[in-house]
Amino acid sequence: MLSPAHLAFAAALLLVLRLPAQAVSARPIVAGKPAPSDAAGTARWLAAQNTWGVLSTISSELSGAPFGNVVSYSDGVPGEGYGIPYFYLTTLDPTARDALEDERTSFTLSEFPLGTCGKIDPENPTCAKLTLTGKLKIVDLRSSEADLAKSALFTKHPEMKDWPRNHHFQIFKLEIENIFLIDWFGGPKPISPSEYLEYGRNQGSLKLS
Amino acid sequence: MLSPAHLAFAAALLLVLRLPAQAVSARPIVAGKPAPSDAAGTARWLAAQNTWGVLSTISSELSGAPFGNVVSYSDGVPGEGYGIPYFYLTTLDPTARDALEDERTSFTLSEFPLGTCGKIDPENPTCAKLTLTGKLKIVDLRSSEADLAKSALFTKHPEMKDWPRNHHFQIFKLEIENIFLIDWFGGPKPISPSEYLEYGRNQGSLKLS
Repeated sequence: MLSPAHLAFAAALLLVLRLPAQAVSARPIVAGKPAPSDAAGTARWLAAQNTWGVLSTISSELSGAPFGNVVSYSDGVPGEGYGIPYFYLTTLDPTARDALEDERTSFTLSEFPLGTCGKIDPENPTCAKLTLTGKLKIVDLRSSEADLAKSALFTKHPEMKDWPRNHHFQIFKLEIENIFLIDWFGGPKPISPSEYLEYGRNQGSLKLS
Repeated sequence: MLSPAHLAFAAALLLVLRLPAQAVSARPIVAGKPAPSDAAGTARWLAAQNTWGVLSTISSELSGAPFGNVVSYSDGVPGEGYGIPYFYLTTLDPTARDALEDERTSFTLSEFPLGTCGKIDPENPTCAKLTLTGKLKIVDLRSSEADLAKSALFTKHPEMKDWPRNHHFQIFKLEIENIFLIDWFGGPKPISPSEYLEYGRNQGSLKLS
């Protein structure tokens, strides 16, 4: 009978044989990161592993120009991500003000800050990048979702719970409508929001971090 | 006579005395990073130190939604940044296609991936964040600016010069019209594009990396 190590080696070999030579030499497969062919898994891994990204809104103060802002987020407690990014924002900042006027928003993550791209350039398609586009909504503080979101945010960002009360931080979430993932040569991978959100549902809680 | 070390200590002490107690305890001043009160210097330091960021456009394919994309950039050869971000983009990617239809673009950088924020949260205002908003323009390959931009890009991103010719990469630059910088408590710092671009001009070439 084959051991798990044999099976892992055979799987890696099959993967290598499926890929063009250029791709294989450009980027080794990183342990822990899903295979590039597993697009939904890679997107969920990026969302689970990162702790910050860039939230882009339509700027009400800059005549409708796109405005990207650095924000922290969480899609679940460490080791248990659900894919929906939650944010802790104040209307003292333009991003929350913009979203309250026009909900259209995108949220962008890179694999590069995770350190798993090695010497590959951040723009190289094998250094994965994810853009979730949709609507940024306030989460009702009295809902059970707000409890989950608070726990997700405050475990990954402990200082948030001490941020000034008079700044009136609120929990927002991105309702995902479109997913743009580059994780290999050959252009963006088509993933539907339901494929992304339901990924791993049959495997109990998803361990991607 | 006072030695340079004495002067540096006195300057640091003066800086500390000017800041509220909460700010001082929250974040030490990082060596190499300009003081938070030096807003234009901090913005230029972020642009010189980072190698990638998020470029946000108005998406033509997503009905005008804002679309943030991870890109590499350079504002000069290492150690000599000029503040203007140059990019190497292909219309195989939506960002360049968007910009050719609507030039309005923002480019967002964080101090967090530089490692100088320590344990401070990426959204904490003392972990600096910069958004440059303006127009994304193609740089004419026959211009002397193109030579400067190529040298800036290819020294910081050596693999770019080997990227596939049939992808028709072009050099773009952001013509900056608005600057949003958070580098401390108290809201965004007002910096004009000319203050940002002319920073350090009287000191010869600017050494910010």
